[in-house]
Amino acid sequence: MELLDSLQWRYATKRYKMNVKIAEDKVMQIVEAARMAPTSSGLQPFEIILIKNQDVKEKLLPICMNQNQIKECSHLLVFAAWDSYIESRIDAVFDNMENIREMERGTMNDYKKSIKENFARRTKEQQFEHAARQTYLAFGLAIGAAAELRVDASPMEGFYNDKLDQALGLDKKGLKSVTLLALGERDLQNDWLAPMKKVRFDLDKILTVIE
Amino acid sequence: MELLDSLQWRYATKRYKMNVKIAEDKVMQIVEAARMAPTSSGLQPFEIILIKNQDVKEKLLPICMNQNQIKECSHLLVFAAWDSYIESRIDAVFDNMENIREMERGTMNDYKKSIKENFARRTKEQQFEHAARQTYLAFGLAIGAAAELRVDASPMEGFYNDKLDQALGLDKKGLKSVTLLALGERDLQNDWLAPMKKVRFDLDKILTVIE
Repeated sequence: MELLDSLQWRYATKRYKMNVKIAEDKVMQIVEAARMAPTSSGLQPFEIILIKNQDVKEKLLPICMNQNQIKECSHLLVFAAWDSYIESRIDAVFDNMENIREMERGTMNDYKKSIKENFARRTKEQQFEHAARQTYLAFGLAIGAAAELRVDASPMEGFYNDKLDQALGLDKKGLKSVTLLALGERDLQNDWLAPMKKVRFDLDKILTVIE
Repeated sequence: MELLDSLQWRYATKRYKMNVKIAEDKVMQIVEAARMAPTSSGLQPFEIILIKNQDVKEKLLPICMNQNQIKECSHLLVFAAWDSYIESRIDAVFDNMENIREMERGTMNDYKKSIKENFARRTKEQQFEHAARQTYLAFGLAIGAAAELRVDASPMEGFYNDKLDQALGLDKKGLKSVTLLALGERDLQNDWLAPMKKVRFDLDKILTVIE
């Protein structure tokens, strides 16, 4: 099966060939996998910032703990979750749904109201954590897409979220960065992780079957 | 590209044909995609409970808000995150790594120590939320795998987590359920969602490019 083959192929790349740029159409397919991810109630509570500019990547380097991938990668994707489920965002989701499905305006009002009430009962932090989980689901599919395209990728959590939000102006857009995906071509000669065996728990350690 | 085709094919199935059972080897490939998911520091902080027993599914029905998929699906996967990163769990990860990579025992001790210190600075709730995000990443890849196999699936968050944890004894294992994936074959005649157009934000609503 393609996805399992892809997941076997991939690894968290530590060093990239700086002179290799990934084709734009591949990068856009990776973004598209995240866009097509299912999310809770279809809310798609995240945005992606695609950084191609080398100066911007260098500027983010100290915020990202000076990890090589930031400056060496071809493209850097920042996954940022909604900081909360404010009503206007939920309205936009259902406006879009009513448009695409050619429903009469207001068809989804009862469902929309129940969703707003559901989130209103949660703290802003709980709302953000809910959005962050959805973002990770999409992040997973983006990782799978990169692997299928044989684009090397590094999922990265090691950065100062608040500083990154400020540097990219995410805070002003009501977004909070949650994770990064660097894309590029592995530098086999210099990447210590490339030759290492993949490590996972055996199936019996993580699976319980109720027959 | 296979993954994008698969994501276009799938939808959050609402009704299943109760008499159709999904082949075991397909179900195990879906679980395998989750097992192969990358996770933060390779910690794999989740377990999966695979429920095939119809009586157990029926028992969980009220806990899952009586949604049809619970009783109609062929297999029900429960994704449960570690409730916290206790030291023995982190030790088990690096014991496994040292075994698989045939490293001398203790090779990873410095890194392991830094990870333990990092999590010790966080509250138990923050530790769980970190684990839950990793679980959603794996959940996303399981959804992608099901779609590639043309197995219908329903990602489901609508259940009483604490009650499900008690019913399945997850609380005693230091696990907290975070999401469900029902698997089966869509009942096209009775599923109102099956003929509906897929709804997603346009790319320009979720993507910012920094050239």
